[in-house]
Amino acid sequence: MSNRKPLILVTNDDGISAKGLFSLFEAVKGFGEVVIVAPDSPQSGMGHAITINNPLRLDKVEIFDDVLAYSCSGTPVDCVKLGIYEVLKQKPDLIVSGINHGSNTSTNVLYSGTMSAAVEGAMENIPSIGFSLCNFDSDADFSVAQKVVEQVVQKVLKEGMPEETCLNVNIPDVSFENFNGIKLCHQAKAFWEDSFDKRVDQFGRPYFWLTGHFLDQEKTNDTDLYWIDKGFASIVPTQFDMTAYKALKELENWNL
Amino acid sequence: MSNRKPLILVTNDDGISAKGLFSLFEAVKGFGEVVIVAPDSPQSGMGHAITINNPLRLDKVEIFDDVLAYSCSGTPVDCVKLGIYEVLKQKPDLIVSGINHGSNTSTNVLYSGTMSAAVEGAMENIPSIGFSLCNFDSDADFSVAQKVVEQVVQKVLKEGMPEETCLNVNIPDVSFENFNGIKLCHQAKAFWEDSFDKRVDQFGRPYFWLTGHFLDQEKTNDTDLYWIDKGFASIVPTQFDMTAYKALKELENWNL
Repeated sequence: MSNRKPLILVTNDDGISAKGLFSLFEAVKGFGEVVIVAPDSPQSGMGHAITINNPLRLDKVEIFDDVLAYSCSGTPVDCVKLGIYEVLKQKPDLIVSGINHGSNTSTNVLYSGTMSAAVEGAMENIPSIGFSLCNFDSDADFSVAQKVVEQVVQKVLKEGMPEETCLNVNIPDVSFENFNGIKLCHQAKAFWEDSFDKRVDQFGRPYFWLTGHFLDQEKTNDTDLYWIDKGFASIVPTQFDMTAYKALKELENWNL
Repeated sequence: MSNRKPLILVTNDDGISAKGLFSLFEAVKGFGEVVIVAPDSPQSGMGHAITINNPLRLDKVEIFDDVLAYSCSGTPVDCVKLGIYEVLKQKPDLIVSGINHGSNTSTNVLYSGTMSAAVEGAMENIPSIGFSLCNFDSDADFSVAQKVVEQVVQKVLKEGMPEETCLNVNIPDVSFENFNGIKLCHQAKAFWEDSFDKRVDQFGRPYFWLTGHFLDQEKTNDTDLYWIDKGFASIVPTQFDMTAYKALKELENWNL
């Protein structure tokens, strides 16, 4: 990296007015020149969705002091693409996404707009980090999370990022006194046991709300869920190569 | 598997009325009892999105002879969840998704609603396969693809599926004479070089269409893009553990 200030693209999935986005901006603004491109409305659970059947809108907003900021009608991944190719017209030195209101541990990484923005950054060969606080409250306290952001961003700007990788950083919902540090680990084998809340609208037609609870099926001690539970922030390096290499060997016996 | 007929859930991302869905249904109906739950509108590019901020609608449709079929207002992953927990109220023996109108090779797996439905099936521990024909035409010829579906489904019903894995099957857009068989391989390292088509609406406000072209950066001969180009169908076993285990070792030197 040259002597110029790093160019940092900030995005999220909770939308341009989320407290988590402002908290992330506050935590990273000292590290470089910040530009914000975030969804104009909440995009939780949008995963790696992109907008291809509708046009995208991009509007300059003035809600952050002295910082170039845009709201976008699309998904978090759209924000990254528009940020790079339309707003910056160059690749930033770093993409940070979050701070998400709620956990993105384990298989939630697949549903997470926050993390998909970071994965998109990795596909663009840009060091990218998704941050999530394990608290869904819109007015959650992000002060521990901000300290973790500072520590991780400083490290990434210094060390760079392993190839074809981004980071999934989850922060436990604890006070400074109960925060125990940062652990590297892998994505826990945990799943949603889904159910649907079936209701009836004013015309007598049924509709469904997705609900359910999350089941940790892994009993090892090197997973994100394990460390979060112990008061640590977890870092899972995350890749976009979804090939199941182990299964590839097994399938060779199929003689297709 | 017992002697009863396998229960097969069919979905897609191009929507309930897509020719590819009907072609998939035709190809699998001989293998078991088929139930269809597919989006009521095109959901291409929706990735692993789920609907959490809006209620979901599920409507019985009669467009397939003697087959229980539902259209759903949500994403392909919503269709899988509703299919299992609301329609079938049990796990099917197999989930098939597609046949997609267009390639889902390489990193397209991340954006693909078709493949995300299969990945969701794998997370539910159900043998799941996504099929895609490398032709975007709404009236494409699916006859080669249907033969591949039959061959792969037969194999999976017999052999089962490797743990925590689903299959990403892409079929080249060729005639029977030019179809060369099926190859196991990994996801190619290829990426979209994005650009945006900027236009102005009737009120003078700008809007953007996502566009771009796909760049294959891998020169090895064991990728999906390589084999599709040679007239073979490609099968990439696909997993939902996105942990970058190689990077995990590298990051241990960071002493966080």
